[in-house]
Amino acid sequence: MEREFLRWLRGRLPGDPRLIVPPGDDAAVLRLGGSDVVVTVDLLTEGVDFLLAQHDPRKIGRKALAVNLSDLAAMAARPLAAFVAVALPRDGARELAESLLAGMQPLAEEFGLAIAGGDTNTWDGPLVLSVTALGEPGPGGSLRRNGARPGDVLMATGSFGGSILAHQFDFTPRVREALLLAERYPLGAGIDVSDGLAIDALHLAEESGCGVALDLARVPIAPDAERLAFEKPAGGTALDHALGDGEDFELLLAVAPEVARRMLDEQPLGATPLTEIGRFVDAPGLWQLRQGALTALAPRGWEHRASS
Amino acid sequence: MEREFLRWLRGRLPGDPRLIVPPGDDAAVLRLGGSDVVVTVDLLTEGVDFLLAQHDPRKIGRKALAVNLSDLAAMAARPLAAFVAVALPRDGARELAESLLAGMQPLAEEFGLAIAGGDTNTWDGPLVLSVTALGEPGPGGSLRRNGARPGDVLMATGSFGGSILAHQFDFTPRVREALLLAERYPLGAGIDVSDGLAIDALHLAEESGCGVALDLARVPIAPDAERLAFEKPAGGTALDHALGDGEDFELLLAVAPEVARRMLDEQPLGATPLTEIGRFVDAPGLWQLRQGALTALAPRGWEHRASS
Repeated sequence: MEREFLRWLRGRLPGDPRLIVPPGDDAAVLRLGGSDVVVTVDLLTEGVDFLLAQHDPRKIGRKALAVNLSDLAAMAARPLAAFVAVALPRDGARELAESLLAGMQPLAEEFGLAIAGGDTNTWDGPLVLSVTALGEPGPGGSLRRNGARPGDVLMATGSFGGSILAHQFDFTPRVREALLLAERYPLGAGIDVSDGLAIDALHLAEESGCGVALDLARVPIAPDAERLAFEKPAGGTALDHALGDGEDFELLLAVAPEVARRMLDEQPLGATPLTEIGRFVDAPGLWQLRQGALTALAPRGWEHRASS
Repeated sequence: MEREFLRWLRGRLPGDPRLIVPPGDDAAVLRLGGSDVVVTVDLLTEGVDFLLAQHDPRKIGRKALAVNLSDLAAMAARPLAAFVAVALPRDGARELAESLLAGMQPLAEEFGLAIAGGDTNTWDGPLVLSVTALGEPGPGGSLRRNGARPGDVLMATGSFGGSILAHQFDFTPRVREALLLAERYPLGAGIDVSDGLAIDALHLAEESGCGVALDLARVPIAPDAERLAFEKPAGGTALDHALGDGEDFELLLAVAPEVARRMLDEQPLGATPLTEIGRFVDAPGLWQLRQGALTALAPRGWEHRASS
């Protein structure tokens, strides 16, 4: 529903000169006096994003903050503050609130973010957390989704697939990586992978008014994607998991070919590889590059997740 | 749980120089480059703040935005933008999302606020809405809760009680009133009445390190409080409703006696009366003024509602 609703929403909302980046990107950007502020919100619910009976509430709290930090990373923004609203099941509400916050604090400290306020509620329903994160644009300004151009290279950080086994809770949002890349290279466009590598690459292309072709042989596959494919072959190949699982929270970037070459030579992120995984093309849609030719590729990945 | 948890939270959170107003006020204030931004979040849940089976979803959407505007009013801040995160019951999710937004839009336009982003989710639980609103400090800077001094007069806008009959959904947040008052008068402290007149007056006093004495004979009672008292005498008197019902979303202000006199003479808010309803006193706690003497008054009102 998300994408379709967002399109409808964008059509309905009047343009506002203070809104430098409108709904539909990883975060919105507002102009405030002389400063820009980057704002993103993500709401997590029991049964969709976590299972309280299975997952340590500290991990749930950490994830709620981390997905927002990942959105700030996708804008190449520096984290400033977060606001945490929760609907807590009545039973054990106080302990649960403390555990959620205890899971957020180390991450907030690591990324220099202030937990600046919130709203705690108890009710008869399951746990819901909504985190709003604010940031300021990094060295290259706000990184949009709409700046990819046909001919640009699609670059990815890290590896993909199998996040359900652990990565969805213990990933490190690519904030430092995004800021470092934005400082050293001209970046055309960026997104973080929450819905799935293939579909988020398509989102980047669609927002930029072009298409994207993945070079499937180059997609970096996470060990947990291999493990899932081995343990449950009916669930698809490791590549299927890499393309479709989502919640990798890696960055996809559009950069000019000469920038991609420099990135590949310099590998500036140390232990985190930067990989060329495709090209932006004129023809709208999602494609695969096979022996130099384009073939259509069906998008995979969840549609449940948030934008801005 | 809210107040106790907030106290615990404030003890746990490291101070942050960018956080001009920390958690516990009606909103937080962040310093961003040269500008300050006022941020507040409120989360509303089915069964606590509304009943989807009874209340038009447009009214629910309007209320979710209006309670945040009321928090900005309590800081004497000018609204800028709102971010809306929702957890929607799967059945009819799209129609519900559209109705919620349709309820927000007229209010957003009226107060010059951009609906700048959000996060729509569907799940198997009941409706949850979380709205984060951003504003900029008004003419007198951010109005805090902690600036009341013993001897200050407690002033109130409008009238109190019986909000459950209609006012909780159709109130107009006191944004314009707050900005006008902040421009014309020095204001010591302010809060909006969400938990209840008596308990929110006490919040103001506690944050300011003093007490407050209400002059019960002067409390302006709303017609709906009279109606409730008449129709259900077991529920308390009209004054009980005025003191304890909550969700009046009127402003309580602490001002110096000479400022109060000017306000009362000038009645600058037109149809909305400004009334003197008490005094801040040295002795901590909630009191009533009776024939010049202080008597203890038990706080009433909900503890469910939000801060910052």
